[in-house]
Amino acid sequence: MFTSHLECPKCSASYDSEQPHQLCVCGSPLLVRYDLERVGARMRKEQVACRSPDLWRYRELLPVIDDRNIVTMGEGMTPLLKLERLGRQLGMTQLYLKDEGVIPTGSFKARGATVGVSRAKELGVKTLAMPTNGNAGGAWALYCAKAGIRAHIVMPKDAPVIPRSECAIAGVSLSLVNGLISDAGTIVAQAVREYQWYDASTLKEPYRIEGKKTMGLELAEQFGWELPDVILYPTGGGVGLIGIYKALTELKQIGWVQGELPRLVAVQASGCAPIVRAWEAQARESEFWENARTCAFGITVPKAIGDFLVLDAVYATQGCAVAVDDDDTLAAEARLASVEGAFVCPEGAACMAAIEKLLAQGWLNPDERVVLLNTGCGIKYPETVRCDPPVLEPGDRLLA
Amino acid sequence: MFTSHLECPKCSASYDSEQPHQLCVCGSPLLVRYDLERVGARMRKEQVACRSPDLWRYRELLPVIDDRNIVTMGEGMTPLLKLERLGRQLGMTQLYLKDEGVIPTGSFKARGATVGVSRAKELGVKTLAMPTNGNAGGAWALYCAKAGIRAHIVMPKDAPVIPRSECAIAGVSLSLVNGLISDAGTIVAQAVREYQWYDASTLKEPYRIEGKKTMGLELAEQFGWELPDVILYPTGGGVGLIGIYKALTELKQIGWVQGELPRLVAVQASGCAPIVRAWEAQARESEFWENARTCAFGITVPKAIGDFLVLDAVYATQGCAVAVDDDDTLAAEARLASVEGAFVCPEGAACMAAIEKLLAQGWLNPDERVVLLNTGCGIKYPETVRCDPPVLEPGDRLLA
Repeated sequence: MFTSHLECPKCSASYDSEQPHQLCVCGSPLLVRYDLERVGARMRKEQVACRSPDLWRYRELLPVIDDRNIVTMGEGMTPLLKLERLGRQLGMTQLYLKDEGVIPTGSFKARGATVGVSRAKELGVKTLAMPTNGNAGGAWALYCAKAGIRAHIVMPKDAPVIPRSECAIAGVSLSLVNGLISDAGTIVAQAVREYQWYDASTLKEPYRIEGKKTMGLELAEQFGWELPDVILYPTGGGVGLIGIYKALTELKQIGWVQGELPRLVAVQASGCAPIVRAWEAQARESEFWENARTCAFGITVPKAIGDFLVLDAVYATQGCAVAVDDDDTLAAEARLASVEGAFVCPEGAACMAAIEKLLAQGWLNPDERVVLLNTGCGIKYPETVRCDPPVLEPGDRLLA
Repeated sequence: MFTSHLECPKCSASYDSEQPHQLCVCGSPLLVRYDLERVGARMRKEQVACRSPDLWRYRELLPVIDDRNIVTMGEGMTPLLKLERLGRQLGMTQLYLKDEGVIPTGSFKARGATVGVSRAKELGVKTLAMPTNGNAGGAWALYCAKAGIRAHIVMPKDAPVIPRSECAIAGVSLSLVNGLISDAGTIVAQAVREYQWYDASTLKEPYRIEGKKTMGLELAEQFGWELPDVILYPTGGGVGLIGIYKALTELKQIGWVQGELPRLVAVQASGCAPIVRAWEAQARESEFWENARTCAFGITVPKAIGDFLVLDAVYATQGCAVAVDDDDTLAAEARLASVEGAFVCPEGAACMAAIEKLLAQGWLNPDERVVLLNTGCGIKYPETVRCDPPVLEPGDRLLA
């Protein structure tokens, strides 16, 4: 299609996109570059508007060459909901939820999986391996099953348990590790070297981010190609935030959006906030976070390989990074459900807690157009909800 | 909008749709009737094609009068996926999955909830109650929370546990019962009489089915307004099947589809198959099924109030009713995931098992256009998957 090459955002080295590549020789992730002039000349907004409601509607800005390699389960075009009641409670006039729970596998990881697996298939990959905090593993397991690619998934034993079922029923190889995602990553790196498997770790292949960036494309389209003022994103590996920034930059280059980009906010948990610490020091990279721990397990990433890209995007958009306490996250989860009916994952709830914090600090203006990105459905996290209903016998009476 | 009245399909009595009604005086459910001539004159396929990808795109065929009463979370326009690999394994050329797991709350019950709750809100309902096998309770709890309606939910204690979390986090009143949905129904009926609550039990209010019918509208649109040959539907209360039949009949009346309706197949479990038994006897109604039990808990309905409507739809379309064993259902669930990457609920998997049975019997022709309706996501049923992964220590090696 319109892919021109792979490019290193650190040392600017260029790579042939028709060959499988992992990291740059300098150690940085690689990014896919497109011939945006040709894309701009060919792609029409009115055309896109009538395509099927999934992320493949942005075909020209995606890296798969042959349609027959696309491994899709109808993922994307997730709801953008205005939170009227919660907005009123907070005095906000334009509060929005982008709900990534409404997607195959119940999390935004399906976006990375559909594009990453499709491209892996196209490049002839037979076996891949990846570390995961749960949801990416579940998604890649199922998409790999559909593609006929063998997958080896390694996740922390404390990760939420439902993604284990996704891996098991997909029939892939799953291992737990008595440690964090960083430990899982070390095990995968060793296996990749030993067996020459394709390394599907976060940002170690350049295509997952192309799937994630479609969240940015959709937000632009759903807002009628006008951009919101602020996007809050729960940040572990940060691929979604980097992807959204990449998407909006590409849209600007093809002339589909104008003006300032939204301020991007990296939301982390107080128990694992390396990006926040780096941002506070105005550093370009983060330091490994010791003893990482949070109920928002998906963002328990002590040191992200793409940390500098996350920080670049935050700095470039006059965004910020903010850490929230688990108690506030769980309270926000309950409030979103009881006021707006949205049962979100703890990572999404962390963004709601961050909104309240940033409002109180005056960093957010209550009349700004603010998007809370919820990365997954709450039904994958039943353990975050206390529930102790009474048990009746047949014929018992219900109390009013 | 275009609602004309409520009508009893049994005794033809007519009711004012501007008043809240439950059952007909004769005991039958009521159906919503529209002024289809006016709908046909006003609604355009090209218009619908450009509306937002949720079930409210069929606004003219839905019963809510004032848009401000719509309680929506972006539900509908779920993926219709061609199952190429599984089709090839079975020698089928046109096997499709309609995946209702990709919807808020992870099950098709969100359709009934969005329309039912919106209309309850419009009619001024303050408190409602309902028995449920789980997913409807979870969905109505969350939609009621958003609408500001108090809800009392009663479900069997053996129902899947995740919907309990949905009820709890929504902040509604949840009770379990040491029995089946029929026992929950008796408790709700008693409370409704005692406290004058709105009864949101299956088909005891006429609007839930209007939400469910949108599955039929979407299938017609997704097939380019040509109808498939066969639709298989996991049948407990049967509202979806009745709804799909109603939808396709309405589309015929406004001239949007032509020809034979698809043969509708009611799929049940061997451990609870009252509709199948009735169909085998060519009866108009079913008998209460004693000691009902199946892993597909959502279809554990010993006697459905709308059984005669389900049977009518099956007879009218030259469909059939078929029961499958739990072992076959669980095997089909694993096969759908490992071959197509689709982690479906056991109820959806039962339809896959039924397809294999009907193919073997020659009832299905391998070249027919066959739709398997999966009513919810598998991630709500982690207990149906065996998973016992090895636990590694940091630094351990992965085996190839």
